[in-house]
Amino acid sequence: MMERKRDEEDGNGREHEHDIEIEGKESSPKGMRQPLLSRKHDSGSRINRTSQIAIVGANLCPIESLDYEIVENDLFKQDWRSRTKSEIYQYVVLKWTLALLIGLGTGLVGFFNNIAVENIAGFKFLLANNLMLKERYYQAFVAYASCNIVLAVAAGALCAYIAPAAAGSGIPEVKAYLNGIDAHTILAPSTLFVKIFGSIFGVAAGFVVGKEGPMVHTGACIASLLGQGGSRKYRLTWRWLRYFKNDRDRRDLITCGAAAGVAAAFRAPVGGVLFALEEAASWWRSALLWRTFFTTAVVAVVLRGFIEFCRSGRCGLFGQGGLIMFDVNSAPATYGTPDLLAVILLGVIGGIFGSLYNYMVDKVLRTYSIINERGRSFKVLLVICISLLTSCCSYGLPWILQCTPCPAHSEEECPTVGRSGNYKNFQCPPNHYNDLASLFLTTNDDAIRSLFSSSSEKEFQMSTLLVFFAAIYFLGIVTYGIAIPSGLFIPVILAGASYGRLVGKFLDPLSGLDAGLFALLGAASFLGGTMRMTVSLCVILLELTNNLLMLPLVMLVLLISKTVADSFNKGVYDQIVKMKGLPYMEAHAEPYMRNLVASDAVSGPLITFSGFEKVGHILYALKITKHNGFPVIDEPPFSAAPELCGLVLRSHLLVLLKGKKFTKQRIMTGSEIVRRFKAHEFAKPGSGKGLKVEDLDIKDDEMEMFVDLHPITNMSPYTVLETTSLAKAAVLFRELGLRHLCVVPKTPGRPPIVGILTRHDFMPEHVLGLHPHLHSHK
Amino acid sequence: MMERKRDEEDGNGREHEHDIEIEGKESSPKGMRQPLLSRKHDSGSRINRTSQIAIVGANLCPIESLDYEIVENDLFKQDWRSRTKSEIYQYVVLKWTLALLIGLGTGLVGFFNNIAVENIAGFKFLLANNLMLKERYYQAFVAYASCNIVLAVAAGALCAYIAPAAAGSGIPEVKAYLNGIDAHTILAPSTLFVKIFGSIFGVAAGFVVGKEGPMVHTGACIASLLGQGGSRKYRLTWRWLRYFKNDRDRRDLITCGAAAGVAAAFRAPVGGVLFALEEAASWWRSALLWRTFFTTAVVAVVLRGFIEFCRSGRCGLFGQGGLIMFDVNSAPATYGTPDLLAVILLGVIGGIFGSLYNYMVDKVLRTYSIINERGRSFKVLLVICISLLTSCCSYGLPWILQCTPCPAHSEEECPTVGRSGNYKNFQCPPNHYNDLASLFLTTNDDAIRSLFSSSSEKEFQMSTLLVFFAAIYFLGIVTYGIAIPSGLFIPVILAGASYGRLVGKFLDPLSGLDAGLFALLGAASFLGGTMRMTVSLCVILLELTNNLLMLPLVMLVLLISKTVADSFNKGVYDQIVKMKGLPYMEAHAEPYMRNLVASDAVSGPLITFSGFEKVGHILYALKITKHNGFPVIDEPPFSAAPELCGLVLRSHLLVLLKGKKFTKQRIMTGSEIVRRFKAHEFAKPGSGKGLKVEDLDIKDDEMEMFVDLHPITNMSPYTVLETTSLAKAAVLFRELGLRHLCVVPKTPGRPPIVGILTRHDFMPEHVLGLHPHLHSHK
Repeated sequence: MMERKRDEEDGNGREHEHDIEIEGKESSPKGMRQPLLSRKHDSGSRINRTSQIAIVGANLCPIESLDYEIVENDLFKQDWRSRTKSEIYQYVVLKWTLALLIGLGTGLVGFFNNIAVENIAGFKFLLANNLMLKERYYQAFVAYASCNIVLAVAAGALCAYIAPAAAGSGIPEVKAYLNGIDAHTILAPSTLFVKIFGSIFGVAAGFVVGKEGPMVHTGACIASLLGQGGSRKYRLTWRWLRYFKNDRDRRDLITCGAAAGVAAAFRAPVGGVLFALEEAASWWRSALLWRTFFTTAVVAVVLRGFIEFCRSGRCGLFGQGGLIMFDVNSAPATYGTPDLLAVILLGVIGGIFGSLYNYMVDKVLRTYSIINERGRSFKVLLVICISLLTSCCSYGLPWILQCTPCPAHSEEECPTVGRSGNYKNFQCPPNHYNDLASLFLTTNDDAIRSLFSSSSEKEFQMSTLLVFFAAIYFLGIVTYGIAIPSGLFIPVILAGASYGRLVGKFLDPLSGLDAGLFALLGAASFLGGTMRMTVSLCVILLELTNNLLMLPLVMLVLLISKTVADSFNKGVYDQIVKMKGLPYMEAHAEPYMRNLVASDAVSGPLITFSGFEKVGHILYALKITKHNGFPVIDEPPFSAAPELCGLVLRSHLLVLLKGKKFTKQRIMTGSEIVRRFKAHEFAKPGSGKGLKVEDLDIKDDEMEMFVDLHPITNMSPYTVLETTSLAKAAVLFRELGLRHLCVVPKTPGRPPIVGILTRHDFMPEHVLGLHPHLHSHK
Repeated sequence: MMERKRDEEDGNGREHEHDIEIEGKESSPKGMRQPLLSRKHDSGSRINRTSQIAIVGANLCPIESLDYEIVENDLFKQDWRSRTKSEIYQYVVLKWTLALLIGLGTGLVGFFNNIAVENIAGFKFLLANNLMLKERYYQAFVAYASCNIVLAVAAGALCAYIAPAAAGSGIPEVKAYLNGIDAHTILAPSTLFVKIFGSIFGVAAGFVVGKEGPMVHTGACIASLLGQGGSRKYRLTWRWLRYFKNDRDRRDLITCGAAAGVAAAFRAPVGGVLFALEEAASWWRSALLWRTFFTTAVVAVVLRGFIEFCRSGRCGLFGQGGLIMFDVNSAPATYGTPDLLAVILLGVIGGIFGSLYNYMVDKVLRTYSIINERGRSFKVLLVICISLLTSCCSYGLPWILQCTPCPAHSEEECPTVGRSGNYKNFQCPPNHYNDLASLFLTTNDDAIRSLFSSSSEKEFQMSTLLVFFAAIYFLGIVTYGIAIPSGLFIPVILAGASYGRLVGKFLDPLSGLDAGLFALLGAASFLGGTMRMTVSLCVILLELTNNLLMLPLVMLVLLISKTVADSFNKGVYDQIVKMKGLPYMEAHAEPYMRNLVASDAVSGPLITFSGFEKVGHILYALKITKHNGFPVIDEPPFSAAPELCGLVLRSHLLVLLKGKKFTKQRIMTGSEIVRRFKAHEFAKPGSGKGLKVEDLDIKDDEMEMFVDLHPITNMSPYTVLETTSLAKAAVLFRELGLRHLCVVPKTPGRPPIVGILTRHDFMPEHVLGLHPHLHSHK
């Protein structure tokens, strides 16, 4: 009942989500049959559960667990045995076609995104530049700032009013999804729409945000949409996609989508595969590696084709700016001990800055969530504030620095007249340029290119780099968390590159390494310090800069900065997942779990069904609880003693009850049911919205009838003995990607099931809540 | 009894392996307590088991399964609770130190290998060249062929007499080890020694073999040796490595070693990590990615250092030849539809050739294994034959082709005088060169470099390439399987590169792609067709050629050739694993397993122990069976009814019996035992040889005493209900890396365990042997 109340509260806060099936906890509420709960932690557990869920509710819409287990019931077996060769072939072809489509779609969106940003931002900068050249400085600022605010409001309003789930990077959510947590609307069509356009407006508005994280989320959304055969809500469905109506196949598709997103964002196909492997996915198979690779290859080909198309100037202001591919021209042939020491120092400091970044982002996010929860208009207001702050910084800070005279023999025009160029005149006298304005008043991609370039060796003064670094570091932290799609890669790379170049300037007398290389290594150190990836970041950086000779140095920096940062806190994505209260299952069991057994984590009483159950009883159980799995017990006279028959899912029960195959007596109607129903009727519905209890129309006389649950019961649920250590149960649960794990008694003569463990039961908050004395232990 | 007889037969065939503990089957022999076998398949199973093991015995030394489960018994818990912070810290430091050492060791060996090969082969070619220049052709052939034979005999004798396990590539064995199969001596110090020197002699002898596969095996051996704290046999042990005395930590180290091997062989650190992930490892964790990456980074740094060292000419004949890094100079800026069609054609044909290669290798291996089994001298004889054949081909074939006049304005000297160079004069008149001799009479690495080079566009005639391709393809097939360490990468790359260049010549009028690029794509297509890797091959090729712009084309070719080849047969390594009869657990369950339940695969009766067991009974059980795991049952009066207490391992039983902590009565001595023994006494011994039953000295009066098995019983064994589908049991077994899986009864009132499933019970041969009717099903 307590859970029910919470549901309603959730509903009040979030009007757009009232049609969500809320799960909360998947098993064991008020006792109906055998109240088998273990003695010691009845009341305690209840309190703890509530507080835990409150955290979840505070930050995100309600969540549902995904089920990667194959439900081996009679219907499945029937369907599986009758599967023809051509159907299997069809499935394989479809799988690869979907991978192709995901690649095409993500590549297309990635390209569109780039063209749109380049054109919108380009127009904005041209406008401001022209006014500046006429020395109408205030007008220029007003034009610049109001462009930014209009774009920011567009992005913020989309996020606040249409799809709140589209705010932020999206990588933590995709990561959680691939871990088995389906936070509703996270992959919905509306989220996709807002993510694409919100990201374009947000980046074009000059925020210190990237489009890389949102691209990953976009790729995942496209994959989800394709996999579920379109959206039922918008009446766009393809019926031949019924094979993919289960969590397992969808997980594979979304992994492909995440990889395609990175591939499209960075033009790094191998990096995309590795990102999906290292950061996004919780389960991995060799077969998936191949499919992911195919998807990212398609993305690479699509992008290449479009760039060829745009080369002839058919894409407006889209120049070399879009689709980052930075050239660090001169690779160092050799490096000596002082260079290595410089690089190690860079890595250590980068790691410290990176972990500090994570710490600050966490604090800011917590502050913002208080503001954001006050309403949608507050969200938009916050976006406007940050937009103004960004505009002031980027327009105001260049004034405090001196102008630099143009170099005598520059290949580039100085000062810059057109859209792109490194010599922005700004407020300077003729034949001078403002190097800080050249960094600020351009797109983030162009700024990174300038910093990475080794041809601009003398271009940036130390004070410029210092101011730019401080501003970007600060703006990056305060921008993440406002209601726009905002990636973390670009702010971190930008701050890291300026930091690296700064260190390079300092160590110039000692080290012979190139300034552009220092910028690259600085970016690597920041990325390692915040995101804590290794191989994927390394490959992404290599693919970005197209130079393999720097590999050893990049590896070294990444390893050092990750090691340093790991001693302070967790990676930024893990931190966000935790802050959002998502019940993420770690790959390893917590040490204290070795001191507990499986039954220690079982809480609350258990509802079980008999093999032939009364309809009224099922309906009542479905109504009063939100559980998704119920054990089915065979009882005398159908077996010698009560024994565990298997596990039945709520969604399957609802379909069965809807079919109304009831009998007056407890008799076997299994074969009839198998004949009557098709396996795909029990498949997971497209957008997570299946039948609900309220949809059922059971008459009073039917309530007293019986239904045979055997055909829909998963006869092979995974089980652990009650005395199995909780650590081992957790490993089993995690490695096999389960949703329900049955705990069975060890001694005979007791009811055949002790309880069900779900994802929530393994969460540290829950376990430590039940066993507070473990807090003192490690 | 039947198994015992087989052991002895094995012993006769392989004198050097007589000290091996043979396992055969890990559970369920002649009934001592409850003979709980399922009724239907008693006799049938026995016959099948024997035939299956016969295959294993025929090809390889006896094998043992590895156990990746943590044995959670009282001793472990005691040890684990008492672990101090500093011990945990020590463990982490050690882990990384070992990764460092593996990287250093593998890098060192890789470099030594290269220097040795370059110097020996260089000397040989110089000798032959000098004689050729004096027109003493017969003498030159004799000198060349006898050098080859001497080196070949050295390699063959090392393999045949010292370490037969060092023959072949070694990658299939490493792959099987990482899947949980410990084929004895596969990672022994003698194998390491022979692998290093055998590989040097074999490659220097001019065989069409590579040093890449052997490097992977070498890396794994180094890791294993370091992890087990040296070798007990050679009295080289480090006592502080006791933390790594378990299969889990050793598996991680060997994964690092395999990655380091690839990194050292190809100078491809990222490729090494991906190889370990895609091809070698069966289990993967994100943490391992990082450690592997560190190891390969160390390898890269070591190799770089040595190459710097050698640049000044301090390494004899070691020139640019060693440590392959091919430069495909001019990257194509654009490619059109005809180019893509050419590439697709290349991929399709490459896939067909690749799968044909696998088919032929399989046939040749089966033929050779008959010869090799006749004795060691036959092994060496076969090596001599193939060496002669290779010499004849490489010296004889160039005579049949015409000489080419030297190009007018060549940058290189023509004809070549010194050791390396593309214009071998051979039998030609002055100012002419023989292009086929330039490919044949040089090291394989140099030949690949010539083929990949785009500067040698006009150098090779079509007839040359055709003859070279046919010869290499044929020699590659007949060479694999003789008793020398022989990698498959180089033969496949060599054949693929000449094939690609040939196709390039054919399609020259249609496609504008460079000849060197065609060679690279041809190599990719062959690699994809034989080895069936995707991402790792792609990255290895990119790192080899140091050009990222070719990525999309390489990806395309790999995907096509793998797809084509997969429709014919399996990858070459999988094929060899299967041929060797190693019980490799696939990641997915076979379809027919869904029609069976767990108890259907249980065969033979079961031996169980009581919680307080009579010493004599244990000793008898250990003597008459070779099982490694025994269920422990608690019985009245110590429990209300018989219940499963857990699983006890043979190795732990032996240590416990050796300790002689016996009592006259059945009483609890658990706490005493925990006090008396240390956890590390039960740790896995270094080189797989722990106590044996024969080492125990139990007196007659002690035979009647009791021992408390509880402290060494794993109280949390993984279990499945007997009615769980076999497919689900297989997934559980594979995903968690188990050695024993307990099958428990569903109905009360029966003995608390039905049987134990081991790796062998999931093998298709075993399951289909028990249930022949399934053959007709899919």
